[in-house]
Amino acid sequence: MARLFLTPSRIVSGQGALDDSLDILRGLGTKAFVVTDPMMVKLGNCKTVTDALERAGLGFEVFDQITGEPSDIMIEAGIAAFKASGCDMYVGLGGGSPIDAMKAIAMMTACDGDIDEQMGVALDFDRPPLVAIPTTAGTGSEATQFTIINNTRQGIKMLLAGAKVLPDVAIVDPQFTCTAPASVTANTGVDALCHALESATSKKMQPMSYTFSISAIKRILAHLYTCYTEPENVEARTQMAIAATEAGVAFNNASVTIIHGMSRPIGALFHVPHGLSNAMIMLECLRYVVDGAYPQFAAVAREVGASVATDDETAANELLDVIAELLRKLNIPTLASYGIDVDEFRAQIPKMAKDAIDSGSPANTIKPLTAADLETIYERLISA
Amino acid sequence: MARLFLTPSRIVSGQGALDDSLDILRGLGTKAFVVTDPMMVKLGNCKTVTDALERAGLGFEVFDQITGEPSDIMIEAGIAAFKASGCDMYVGLGGGSPIDAMKAIAMMTACDGDIDEQMGVALDFDRPPLVAIPTTAGTGSEATQFTIINNTRQGIKMLLAGAKVLPDVAIVDPQFTCTAPASVTANTGVDALCHALESATSKKMQPMSYTFSISAIKRILAHLYTCYTEPENVEARTQMAIAATEAGVAFNNASVTIIHGMSRPIGALFHVPHGLSNAMIMLECLRYVVDGAYPQFAAVAREVGASVATDDETAANELLDVIAELLRKLNIPTLASYGIDVDEFRAQIPKMAKDAIDSGSPANTIKPLTAADLETIYERLISA
Repeated sequence: MARLFLTPSRIVSGQGALDDSLDILRGLGTKAFVVTDPMMVKLGNCKTVTDALERAGLGFEVFDQITGEPSDIMIEAGIAAFKASGCDMYVGLGGGSPIDAMKAIAMMTACDGDIDEQMGVALDFDRPPLVAIPTTAGTGSEATQFTIINNTRQGIKMLLAGAKVLPDVAIVDPQFTCTAPASVTANTGVDALCHALESATSKKMQPMSYTFSISAIKRILAHLYTCYTEPENVEARTQMAIAATEAGVAFNNASVTIIHGMSRPIGALFHVPHGLSNAMIMLECLRYVVDGAYPQFAAVAREVGASVATDDETAANELLDVIAELLRKLNIPTLASYGIDVDEFRAQIPKMAKDAIDSGSPANTIKPLTAADLETIYERLISA
Repeated sequence: MARLFLTPSRIVSGQGALDDSLDILRGLGTKAFVVTDPMMVKLGNCKTVTDALERAGLGFEVFDQITGEPSDIMIEAGIAAFKASGCDMYVGLGGGSPIDAMKAIAMMTACDGDIDEQMGVALDFDRPPLVAIPTTAGTGSEATQFTIINNTRQGIKMLLAGAKVLPDVAIVDPQFTCTAPASVTANTGVDALCHALESATSKKMQPMSYTFSISAIKRILAHLYTCYTEPENVEARTQMAIAATEAGVAFNNASVTIIHGMSRPIGALFHVPHGLSNAMIMLECLRYVVDGAYPQFAAVAREVGASVATDDETAANELLDVIAELLRKLNIPTLASYGIDVDEFRAQIPKMAKDAIDSGSPANTIKPLTAADLETIYERLISA
């Protein structure tokens, strides 16, 4: 079976990436609609970007009302602001939420339809150019064809997807990730590790996505802890920023598996940030599924230098040991130590297991998984 | 310093890639201008593509007059044919020449200017979508922003370059490479190995290009010889086709070095096919420059599994041994055994060395190189 491999056509990475992108920005339009959040304005990151737009000779308008995971209400406000702005290109600046919001605003403005009707169809509308500038080394949203919008009217999370949702240009500049607090660095970095490892061991893996998965895992194992302990280490930040984008490319083309599947219900019901909920459950999920895919985990272990064992079971488990040690050093909490109420969590396990299965992601795991398997894992997580 | 990383936004690869691309093709236009060569028509590959276009509901017009490396005369004929055709998208089908020709026809039609005036400027003209369908696993032209046109009026080879020269979609289907004769498989495969290894050890290497270089080298070392001995082995052909595209992405973003620099003058003066001239000189070039970059060659050797030596010089030389053994098994000829006249070649050495230096590629090699160095290598090559 043939496979589509989809990437942003242009990725500018490394120190000075924003400053070195002025010619590219100039070629995209005349006035940029900058989608961001209030923290980016406060930290000065937004001004850094609008100053660069000015130096490129572009006008701009800032829409900074993405105050959390994007909702239909934020998107509709963004559509109205874009239409009134006279802008002809988009810039998304922030973690996953502003970039996801930019994608949704652009696609919904282009289709001029009702957001409720766009779930589950491949969005394919011509729209102005999209530029993504990530400020965490984590979500990989700059490299994916997905955006998730909280539909407040229907009380559901809507996945909007399609090739045109993918940004045209990603500017991966470590200056923005250097300001991230240590805990955000850890959680978002482990999120990227999940993207890379899940996509490497997904049933939907393809040769070119695997290339990106392995490269991302190597960079993360080599540099994430340095970013955590030395936040101003530009070389480590650069490597992690590139790793997060590579991991985004990887899972965009090979999907995620059990970790993301089981993490989303925790995020939805207990309001845990996405990266953190992945990080908290990663190891337990891997320990449960590794025996269904020793050869695949062993191959990853050898490729990334985590094991030289010739026996697959040994090599696979050595990879998990390396990950466990990294998570320990990054002080990733357990669900209980994070403050989730044990009884409340237990009460939600059947619903979470069902929602996880329904999301489709666990089915991409090589080991066959039922809702009962997921219930067992959720129980282990809250007992840990 | 930040770096731009440029790839085709959509790469469809694997068995059935063409058949699985109908939706993508349908989204690009209504009538396709198919740029190809007479051999593709004769082999039936052109009909395979136009049948697929028909199934996608698209009209088409075939321009099959690319009878060798593309010249200004062929390009001008292509521009006239495109303008008369009513086409609104391009498909390039073949080895490097038809794909390079498609790029030039599209860019020159879009700028509506004189081809003589476009050398050395970054081409940036809006043009219809470009689809590249490579039929050799070698040039990587489907993934590069370059095209080389033989300017017959001025007697020079013109390099046309720019982000818009890069195809939008690459369809990497092993059905087309399965028909390549063994010698073409060998030569073009070694060309891809040169792209991958030169870009991995180029001064212009960047982190994401290195990811692609390493992946391509691993696939080529694992699968090229199988393609040579088992031409119908679809899995090996698929891996080599992906490797060639990966290697194209790599050198598009990190440049080539000494081998391509020294190969082009041989090709120009002695009419040796591009892939073959690279293959014939690869090992001698590497042996000359390896001592200037033991750490870099050793890193590649370890990444691709060619050496486990901790000593850099040993590891680097073990990589060269692996390559030497592959070239031997692929029956790559020497310059003399290929039939190049020794005296004629010797007489051209000073000119070839100067032309190679002037091309700029040798300067990307980590070991500093002068024209005298290149003369020494040319002399060794013809004495071998």
